[in-house]
Amino acid sequence: MTPRKDLLDIASLTDEEIEFILSNAVPFKDLFKRSVKKVPTLKGRTMLTLFYEPSTRTRSSFEVAASRLSADITHFDVESSSVVKGESVLDTVETLEAMKVDYIVVRHKQSGIPNLIAKNTAASVINAGDGWHAHPTQALLDAFTLREVFKDLRGARCLIVGDIQHSRVARSTSLLLRRLGMNMGYLAPGSLMPREVPDEIARFGNWSDALDWKPDVIYLLRVQSERLDEPFFPSAAEYHKHYGLTDARVQILRDRGLYLMHPGPVNRGVEITDTGMDYEKSLINQQVENGIAVRMSVLYWLRPGASV
Amino acid sequence: MTPRKDLLDIASLTDEEIEFILSNAVPFKDLFKRSVKKVPTLKGRTMLTLFYEPSTRTRSSFEVAASRLSADITHFDVESSSVVKGESVLDTVETLEAMKVDYIVVRHKQSGIPNLIAKNTAASVINAGDGWHAHPTQALLDAFTLREVFKDLRGARCLIVGDIQHSRVARSTSLLLRRLGMNMGYLAPGSLMPREVPDEIARFGNWSDALDWKPDVIYLLRVQSERLDEPFFPSAAEYHKHYGLTDARVQILRDRGLYLMHPGPVNRGVEITDTGMDYEKSLINQQVENGIAVRMSVLYWLRPGASV
Amino acid sequence: MTPRKDLLDIASLTDEEIEFILSNAVPFKDLFKRSVKKVPTLKGRTMLTLFYEPSTRTRSSFEVAASRLSADITHFDVESSSVVKGESVLDTVETLEAMKVDYIVVRHKQSGIPNLIAKNTAASVINAGDGWHAHPTQALLDAFTLREVFKDLRGARCLIVGDIQHSRVARSTSLLLRRLGMNMGYLAPGSLMPREVPDEIARFGNWSDALDWKPDVIYLLRVQSERLDEPFFPSAAEYHKHYGLTDARVQILRDRGLYLMHPGPVNRGVEITDTGMDYEKSLINQQVENGIAVRMSVLYWLRPGASV
Repeated sequence: MTPRKDLLDIASLTDEEIEFILSNAVPFKDLFKRSVKKVPTLKGRTMLTLFYEPSTRTRSSFEVAASRLSADITHFDVESSSVVKGESVLDTVETLEAMKVDYIVVRHKQSGIPNLIAKNTAASVINAGDGWHAHPTQALLDAFTLREVFKDLRGARCLIVGDIQHSRVARSTSLLLRRLGMNMGYLAPGSLMPREVPDEIARFGNWSDALDWKPDVIYLLRVQSERLDEPFFPSAAEYHKHYGLTDARVQILRDRGLYLMHPGPVNRGVEITDTGMDYEKSLINQQVENGIAVRMSVLYWLRPGASV
Repeated sequence: MTPRKDLLDIASLTDEEIEFILSNAVPFKDLFKRSVKKVPTLKGRTMLTLFYEPSTRTRSSFEVAASRLSADITHFDVESSSVVKGESVLDTVETLEAMKVDYIVVRHKQSGIPNLIAKNTAASVINAGDGWHAHPTQALLDAFTLREVFKDLRGARCLIVGDIQHSRVARSTSLLLRRLGMNMGYLAPGSLMPREVPDEIARFGNWSDALDWKPDVIYLLRVQSERLDEPFFPSAAEYHKHYGLTDARVQILRDRGLYLMHPGPVNRGVEITDTGMDYEKSLINQQVENGIAVRMSVLYWLRPGASV
Repeated sequence: MTPRKDLLDIASLTDEEIEFILSNAVPFKDLFKRSVKKVPTLKGRTMLTLFYEPSTRTRSSFEVAASRLSADITHFDVESSSVVKGESVLDTVETLEAMKVDYIVVRHKQSGIPNLIAKNTAASVINAGDGWHAHPTQALLDAFTLREVFKDLRGARCLIVGDIQHSRVARSTSLLLRRLGMNMGYLAPGSLMPREVPDEIARFGNWSDALDWKPDVIYLLRVQSERLDEPFFPSAAEYHKHYGLTDARVQILRDRGLYLMHPGPVNRGVEITDTGMDYEKSLINQQVENGIAVRMSVLYWLRPGASV
């Protein structure tokens, strides 16, 4: 396996690399059962977080992952300071490059920014979400979670529900799950269904048709509240009624034994009800825990000087 | 001593547990005299801070305490991010639970939130202040500080001055000091004196009566500036004149050799004058230093897997 | 060499101390070539950052420096919390003093605050910029960077360009470079040239005269955008035309082989063009990298209990 510098998206990963990341996450997760959940693997390495969009969950997940590998962590607080001073992304990256950090974990609302950064630094860049483009560590933790549930992903069916059009999660996760052999379906209002969808992905406009497709897993996307103002988006109540996981739909999932996923944080009453949150086959918390294990595995895979 | 998971309030602590925490804080404080103020006790454990109300002092105190025990520290930044996304406390806790952190240190303006969190996580929850309810580590550091001054707390008299009604500090500290045998008195404007006060606590409406009670310690509460707008609260100048520690009252403390305490940060010119801040028998800075030692002791007491 | 507690400004440093800091930064910088860029020198010591003005770059630089020396780091978040509560600087310092931190790194918009703090704490105080007064670690990193380029600084000429009047960088850097034997020149609009300038410093009102003085290094100051509103400051476009490093001026630098410096972050289009940012003899990124090495050296020099 050729050493890699960056994790920018799922498309650029080889099958061997995907397998490496997913299988190495297993012993990292085993570590969480111990009282001391820490190994010295990245001692003396520095991971810097560069979040142009706030995200407590993803950032904390990377932080805990880095801590458990004994890395040092620095936040480059772009919101409060440099952006105020009008500093451009590339000037920031030149600065970080000069600081000789080992990893830069970046989130930005504009697609392609992590790629731009990766080209301009010797540090390992990890895309923690860029615009509508990609969120590869989310996809990897989703795949890891599903592999814990299904011995073999081949032939299993996953239905992604919600604003597919603007979702980097849908994009990355569906790409990875398809590569692992799953059949994918999308359920979305017409205004939120991408115009270009690969033929192999089933498309649905309502729950009834989607459930007839016999999915094994329902993956709800988060409704971005800032999108609710826009004309192509129904109101929260309308969305819930037509596309949300209502109590009646939770019952259908239960009757059929379907799994439930969500990237978090959920909007209760919009994409899911309180009942849905307590659903016994929900994998949502497992996704969070696995997020740390998978991110440890990614940091380990990209470790500077690695020749695996 | 049965192992405990959480520190939520003073009321639920046994005498043995109080003694354990206070006496173990002594060697932790001794550590501060060394150039390397650190022990490996909590290496590999993670303490997460979850502050829904800002508090630089309390948060820093917990941070330094955790650092000196070699724990890893993560902030879950609820203000800037999750709250914006409308995430509920319980959903946040499910996330933290999945992250397998060892300690959650929580501050919230609503009473009972730490209890709610504690019920929903396997992590050790430490209440760092919830509404008007409790602030147990403040009470413990206050008791520790007074034990450094008085060999035996029994029979000593402590007068708490200020907005008793809305003070979690008054509530927790007075409960603990009474259990340790001190006599407590409250001095407050009528509108800020709780209606229900245990009979054993002396109540006063003015300094003259309160000083006739012969207190050994004057404990000033912080005036919450946001309370100054409300109708039941006098203006800052009026408050100072009638209930503050004026220069004349500092002189009385000095003449009688009384000790002075305050949970910090002080409002100079409101509850205390500049002269009062320089008073030689003030224990205010000692309270800060002891806060770290006592919080180390609490973290040590609750350490996961402990069987003391 | 007498042990020192604080680094407050360049003026109070002896020649021996300057030499100590600059020469010890060399092995610290060599460390950055290794995969593990960390030494245990300050294990168990705590550095606290106290930034009353935001500065991602300077704060990150100190953080990474402290990490690489294995120190613990705590932020005292004065903006979001204590300032809201109206806490004075000295009360904050009493608190920090009681917390027994080893280093306080302070930035404040008012000159003299670090000195005030240093007098009131046993901790080592490092001035990370105070008002128009001083920014000694910037000066030291500038000197270190120039010593990498010129074997001997004596006789070399450095032209500082911009708002000299309000610049702590100009003040500290020019003082240090003069002590190391460089000849200094200032180029500034009349309204931004200090009235009192030592006779040895050449003064210029336009680029043509300044370049006739034959500088070896051009040191651009950052234009503070908040200054652009004020009457004595030209518009950004006017500033750029008359005092900025236009493309034509970059060409002159290139023709003459001059070095270029800037304390960062730059305002593209104001003090410098995109072309200028790509200039091959720019030392700007080298300044950032050296900033970490020099700050490590400063932390090492002031280390508590040091008797060097």
